[in-house]
Amino acid sequence: MTEPAYVAVDWGTSSFRLWLIDRAGKVLAERRSDEGMLAAAKAGFAGVLQSHLTAVEAPAQLPVLVCGMAGAKTGWVEAGYVDTPAPLSAVLKQAALVPGETRDIRILPGIAQRDTRAPDVMRGEETQLLGALGLGAPGEALVCMPGTHSKWVRVKDGTVVHFSTFMTGELFSVVSRETILSLAVAGADDAEDVASFKAAVKAAYEAPAFAANLLFTARSRQLLFGGTPAAARETLSGTLIGVELAAGLSGTVPKAGITLIASGRLAMLYRLAFDALSVTVQPIDADEAVRRGLSMAAAAIWTK
Amino acid sequence: MTEPAYVAVDWGTSSFRLWLIDRAGKVLAERRSDEGMLAAAKAGFAGVLQSHLTAVEAPAQLPVLVCGMAGAKTGWVEAGYVDTPAPLSAVLKQAALVPGETRDIRILPGIAQRDTRAPDVMRGEETQLLGALGLGAPGEALVCMPGTHSKWVRVKDGTVVHFSTFMTGELFSVVSRETILSLAVAGADDAEDVASFKAAVKAAYEAPAFAANLLFTARSRQLLFGGTPAAARETLSGTLIGVELAAGLSGTVPKAGITLIASGRLAMLYRLAFDALSVTVQPIDADEAVRRGLSMAAAAIWTK
Repeated sequence: MTEPAYVAVDWGTSSFRLWLIDRAGKVLAERRSDEGMLAAAKAGFAGVLQSHLTAVEAPAQLPVLVCGMAGAKTGWVEAGYVDTPAPLSAVLKQAALVPGETRDIRILPGIAQRDTRAPDVMRGEETQLLGALGLGAPGEALVCMPGTHSKWVRVKDGTVVHFSTFMTGELFSVVSRETILSLAVAGADDAEDVASFKAAVKAAYEAPAFAANLLFTARSRQLLFGGTPAAARETLSGTLIGVELAAGLSGTVPKAGITLIASGRLAMLYRLAFDALSVTVQPIDADEAVRRGLSMAAAAIWTK
Repeated sequence: MTEPAYVAVDWGTSSFRLWLIDRAGKVLAERRSDEGMLAAAKAGFAGVLQSHLTAVEAPAQLPVLVCGMAGAKTGWVEAGYVDTPAPLSAVLKQAALVPGETRDIRILPGIAQRDTRAPDVMRGEETQLLGALGLGAPGEALVCMPGTHSKWVRVKDGTVVHFSTFMTGELFSVVSRETILSLAVAGADDAEDVASFKAAVKAAYEAPAFAANLLFTARSRQLLFGGTPAAARETLSGTLIGVELAAGLSGTVPKAGITLIASGRLAMLYRLAFDALSVTVQPIDADEAVRRGLSMAAAAIWTK
């Protein structure tokens, strides 16, 4: 095994991921837990991090680079924001040092859009963008990053020029669990219902104003015509994603299509959704992107 | 005091209202409680009703007419549906008799739209429509009935030809209480912020696809620019209502404008919303409408 060069951490609201990485960017060890920002704020950030560093036997002086909500005001140490138009190269240069630690621990800043008509913030996605697009890549990209709070980001020549957050994932969560529609999806198995999903994406894309109506039809359809809980769940999911796509695709779409940064089930759902609308996507794995972004930043900070 | 002629009950999902009414339609006594369908399904419908009948000293043989969710499959006695196109006069003729009661108790049916592309159901609103528009009134009306599950109904010559449910009220409830936006509205006082509300209505009306983004700006705006919890709450409310109006107003609007059947705070909010879009409304009090509808039905059933 080669020597570790640094530790990379993606510390989100509800998840924690750590990688032990060597000088060549190779992953030597990995840790995943649900000790995200919310849990760590109670348990103590330093202790949570140290427990994972101990588990991967990280040497005492090995530096650590963190991205994500750990840098929020309600996180460990506030890492501030780079304001739009935000060159991704600026993200590397503004990491906040965690004070009072013997080890060199830094947290990357987020990006803020200080536009009173479209105020927005991201933390963690800037690092994925860095890993996915690289520094100063020429040309324009329209990036879709699905999640609890999906981001649509327009990047031009390596600079984030505009972005919008859509709380699609969180809406799906509360709509399917906390409203009357929970009755319609109760007991849904994991069986996919691609037809229901794609039909819902198209219907919502074509008439986004009817979102709150299309959601309700998941229940009315069951009452009047029957239908499985899985079909109802796919209708909710497809409706919410379809509305997001109607907004995201309302501007100019680059010739190469949409850059989709996603992993796992979300990557699959969004690819289906774009497919339903015949929109080309360039898929990039989100897990790999954030690790690559952290590696690029670590190299810039400690190896230069 | 004149003699009571019948009892009218509006039995919704989460509320119960009862009126003791004389032959001339005058209200002799009134009861309100939160023993709606959900609570009564546990406590027992007959017992809940009898406790209120006893409280208003209703004679033993006085008939009772009920509308609303008590007639749902999960209610007291299933009262079925009149299918669209649904003449409001048909609602009067299909009341379901509650079996096994010494008293004559009937529940009015709902209306079902058995359209596979736009399946929908209503229970209770058909009685409000009856009271608000009357039987066989000539001409066309586009009716907006705000609520947990708002209804937009097109009525032509006394017949419900089409309607759509929007779960606007329920979305507001879960979005403001169960998502990250609860942080933005926490501690909001009752102070109105008409400017924030109207601005949100207009923004959502103009770009309904951006709903899940406009909601999120209630939080980003606070993070980046400050702002009161009340302003954030009005932004959520205005956004969700604005999207509903974008859908509701997407078809032909009659010259007389929109018939708005609402009461209390919702009536005020929707009037502000329509005003923000310069749309004329004919306001009708929802409480009065349901009582009048029940009276018309009671007269048709027992006095003819």
